[in-house]
Amino acid sequence: MSHTTVKQPAVLTIAGSDSSGGAGIQADLKTFTAHLCYGTSVIVALTAQNTTGVQAVHALPPEFVEQQLRSVLDDVEIKAMKTGMLFDAKSIRAVVRILEAHYDGRPLPLLVCDPVCVSTSGHTLLQADAVEVLIEELLPLTFLVTPNKSEAELMLSHRGLPSSIESLEDILRASSDLLKLGPQAALLKGGHLTVSMDDVERVSRSRQKIRVVRDILFEENMEILQVAEKDLASKEIVVDVLHTASGTTLFIRPRVDSTSTHGTGCTLSAALVCALARGETVETATRNATVFTHLGIETAQPIGEGYGPLNHIHSLTVRSIPQSTSSNPHPFTRLLIQSTSEIWKEYVEHEFVKKLARGTLPRESFLHFIKQDYLYLRYYARAYALLAAKSSTFAAIKTATDTIMNVINEVATHKSFCAKWGISEEELSATPESPATTAYGAYLLDIGLQGDTSKLIVACAACLLGYGEVGLWLKKEAERPSSWVVLEGNPYKQWMYEYGGADYQQAVRVGIETIEAMAQEDPPSPVRFEEWKGIWERCTRLEKGFWDMAMNLA
Amino acid sequence: MSHTTVKQPAVLTIAGSDSSGGAGIQADLKTFTAHLCYGTSVIVALTAQNTTGVQAVHALPPEFVEQQLRSVLDDVEIKAMKTGMLFDAKSIRAVVRILEAHYDGRPLPLLVCDPVCVSTSGHTLLQADAVEVLIEELLPLTFLVTPNKSEAELMLSHRGLPSSIESLEDILRASSDLLKLGPQAALLKGGHLTVSMDDVERVSRSRQKIRVVRDILFEENMEILQVAEKDLASKEIVVDVLHTASGTTLFIRPRVDSTSTHGTGCTLSAALVCALARGETVETATRNATVFTHLGIETAQPIGEGYGPLNHIHSLTVRSIPQSTSSNPHPFTRLLIQSTSEIWKEYVEHEFVKKLARGTLPRESFLHFIKQDYLYLRYYARAYALLAAKSSTFAAIKTATDTIMNVINEVATHKSFCAKWGISEEELSATPESPATTAYGAYLLDIGLQGDTSKLIVACAACLLGYGEVGLWLKKEAERPSSWVVLEGNPYKQWMYEYGGADYQQAVRVGIETIEAMAQEDPPSPVRFEEWKGIWERCTRLEKGFWDMAMNLA
Repeated sequence: MSHTTVKQPAVLTIAGSDSSGGAGIQADLKTFTAHLCYGTSVIVALTAQNTTGVQAVHALPPEFVEQQLRSVLDDVEIKAMKTGMLFDAKSIRAVVRILEAHYDGRPLPLLVCDPVCVSTSGHTLLQADAVEVLIEELLPLTFLVTPNKSEAELMLSHRGLPSSIESLEDILRASSDLLKLGPQAALLKGGHLTVSMDDVERVSRSRQKIRVVRDILFEENMEILQVAEKDLASKEIVVDVLHTASGTTLFIRPRVDSTSTHGTGCTLSAALVCALARGETVETATRNATVFTHLGIETAQPIGEGYGPLNHIHSLTVRSIPQSTSSNPHPFTRLLIQSTSEIWKEYVEHEFVKKLARGTLPRESFLHFIKQDYLYLRYYARAYALLAAKSSTFAAIKTATDTIMNVINEVATHKSFCAKWGISEEELSATPESPATTAYGAYLLDIGLQGDTSKLIVACAACLLGYGEVGLWLKKEAERPSSWVVLEGNPYKQWMYEYGGADYQQAVRVGIETIEAMAQEDPPSPVRFEEWKGIWERCTRLEKGFWDMAMNLA
Repeated sequence: MSHTTVKQPAVLTIAGSDSSGGAGIQADLKTFTAHLCYGTSVIVALTAQNTTGVQAVHALPPEFVEQQLRSVLDDVEIKAMKTGMLFDAKSIRAVVRILEAHYDGRPLPLLVCDPVCVSTSGHTLLQADAVEVLIEELLPLTFLVTPNKSEAELMLSHRGLPSSIESLEDILRASSDLLKLGPQAALLKGGHLTVSMDDVERVSRSRQKIRVVRDILFEENMEILQVAEKDLASKEIVVDVLHTASGTTLFIRPRVDSTSTHGTGCTLSAALVCALARGETVETATRNATVFTHLGIETAQPIGEGYGPLNHIHSLTVRSIPQSTSSNPHPFTRLLIQSTSEIWKEYVEHEFVKKLARGTLPRESFLHFIKQDYLYLRYYARAYALLAAKSSTFAAIKTATDTIMNVINEVATHKSFCAKWGISEEELSATPESPATTAYGAYLLDIGLQGDTSKLIVACAACLLGYGEVGLWLKKEAERPSSWVVLEGNPYKQWMYEYGGADYQQAVRVGIETIEAMAQEDPPSPVRFEEWKGIWERCTRLEKGFWDMAMNLA
């Protein structure tokens, strides 16, 4: 499977555990989930920690770190991975040993190394002697290293490279020097440095091949947004610098004043892993991951007394309609009927239907119904004509038009009924419309005027599906031994056969497939789903009202 | 804060770690995230494990379990929690000790105890002597216990209660007996028992107060779905039985043949925790959690060689438009402009605009433009009239109508321009429409016919926002020292002032707020978002075409 065809690429974090859930493998797993990736985790050390600090650390034996990593790699095809807090030299060596043994000369999955040294709350998370091992043994396996200012300074000074980072120029130099330590790319996070737009303009003028990605700030031809965003006039910005063999990219965004920064680095590197696992370029991955992390900080809710966690789920919404599965292939239709189960039952098991099936329905009621239904069907055909007019594909235009033709055929049946009962076509056409008919018919056309095709399709479904349900129910009931349904000599038998028959049921199936496909392809927001349900319920009531009208005559 | 007002209630799992990510705290954190809850975790023991089995276990010192739990409880307000694999008696005692000390007589957050004894792959996860401690010390603190068949048998036999569970009647008895062990509710999971609909009908006839919740199966008045779902005719079902002081509920669903069951119990109990944390009743929580878990199995992708993990993210979709934040208050408008940045620039920095600002635009070009714009505005007013007709609230009707009135005022300006340039109202009305005008105007009305209000609002925005951008840009440029913009003696000065002025800019702001509110309240699916972007791009091109038309005359 290629990266892009994998629906949920499997990714791996090798890091520490944070009991409070804001950093470590917990932040990674949340971030993986928010990016719809499948997360696995190798825990190197555990912390008893919360937003105020780290209360205790429990390191794991290197052999157990090795065993976890083997268990994952032996069974799951990892698309990209990260390291976070690795705690000590022994763990780093264990990780490197297993990675090298497992891939044995084959290319590793892209590895993002977040060289975590100190927690947001100030706790040391990488022992001093481990830094050397990280640089000498892990960075050569690394695709992308993501240090912050102090981590970059530590790593550079270790190799005797210029290490002080105080200006944007320093960041540029340092991000380039980091590649000398082995990784193919370095993202130097500028969150701890104050930089201005002037700095950015200065360095982009003075050097070639510097790309500036401004995702939230100061874009061209957006004066109308600047006016509305006056508060952004502040020039305090954050710059992350990505350096690869092909050049340097600055990612700039407004500085946000927040204490919800616990696990920022974990979240960023985890988001990078997800983007890389999907085959994105490192530039696109960085753009998406930095924006994801920035929004995580900005939308965080207060949790804990100290540096709270980011919001890892800001990009997620929950489906209103579940995915279609083999045991529940029609979840939308099911939800529609469930959401109106009482009124739906009153409609499809209406007294009118029961009397009709027993053959005891008064002739006047049936005639009134059949004449009004004739008038209703004219609205119904027009509703489908409007649907055709609103459709944007020939396929959709054809489906709507087929239905108009079905309705016209249904009308022929009505006429033959009526003829049998002594009602001429002239009388049929001259019948005054009942308010129940006008209400229902005009409502369909109003929905057609107001909404898009989806609303009109839902509006038309209540009639199509309801008559299908009645037809099928009566057919099933009639087949029971000593059934209450009377076929022999029932003057309304033809009507029952019509809606229980193969042709009409085929139309019902097409109708169900249409609304289900619509809901799966264009999953509605909760607001939109409520609108759909509201239309369905309204039509179900209007259907019931239609039969009430016929019964109340009698 | 009450349960229901917390956006992301904090929840806790006390359980084992599964490196392969399918069970344990990893499954719990994924499930918490999928339910938009904030997850914390106390790890009791770690496994090196994958879908084929458990390769190694590392238990943690009870003191470290205690410290993790203290770190979480001291800092985060937990709304509901669960226990999973607790491994040994010492850990259970540690958990009980800290819970009792922390809450010190106050009610605990609702605790779901998943009495994990054996992994899906057959590995023992709870030592023999720990069962007694779990029953004696943890169950009395438990709100809901969720054993499977063998776990229930083990617990019941420990207390000398009838323990063999082989029939649905046994499940009912056992679920009721489990309450004698201390929890307020018991959910006995029937996945390991074969039950038929006949069994369900038999027990629901023979006992009172048994409720049957059938979420996917055999519902009343859904004959039309049964026909389409022939494969479901199989009577093999799974029954989970919930017993509480107020009665018994059977949750039934079709049995699914799948090997993607690793972590099923973890996922179910974590989903229960999320529902309880949001204040749902235990019945609703069970209904939602069992359906969530069932769909997790049914939609699982193959991962690993053995019993693969569930799909924890089947209910999630990713926003197309990010949440609005203080640093990016207008994400939708920004995305629209970014997605069409080239054509948008050609539109708002059109040669026509530049020449107009310099005062060098040929008189004929301007007159042609202004006459066609007059004709275009008639379409534009009609488009807003259509929007009013399609709106469902008085507020929306008023906003659209205000715009019509603004357009009518704008037309007055046009007339006064034209009068100044010697064009009478009669000549204006008699001007033949250019194809560029018809294309744009008729496109707006076609979108109005085809789509819902959202599409029409997006279609109308390109004109409103684009002229706003032009007005603001020229205003800003004019204010620069030795600007290229000529105001003194510029015959088109009034036009520039019009669109850069406060009244028009106020209308632009209302327009931006309208589309942003729409995108936040009713987040579009990817399909819908692409439609919106497509309409925006089309209108941007039509705008550019409009000025091309005026320039090509000259």
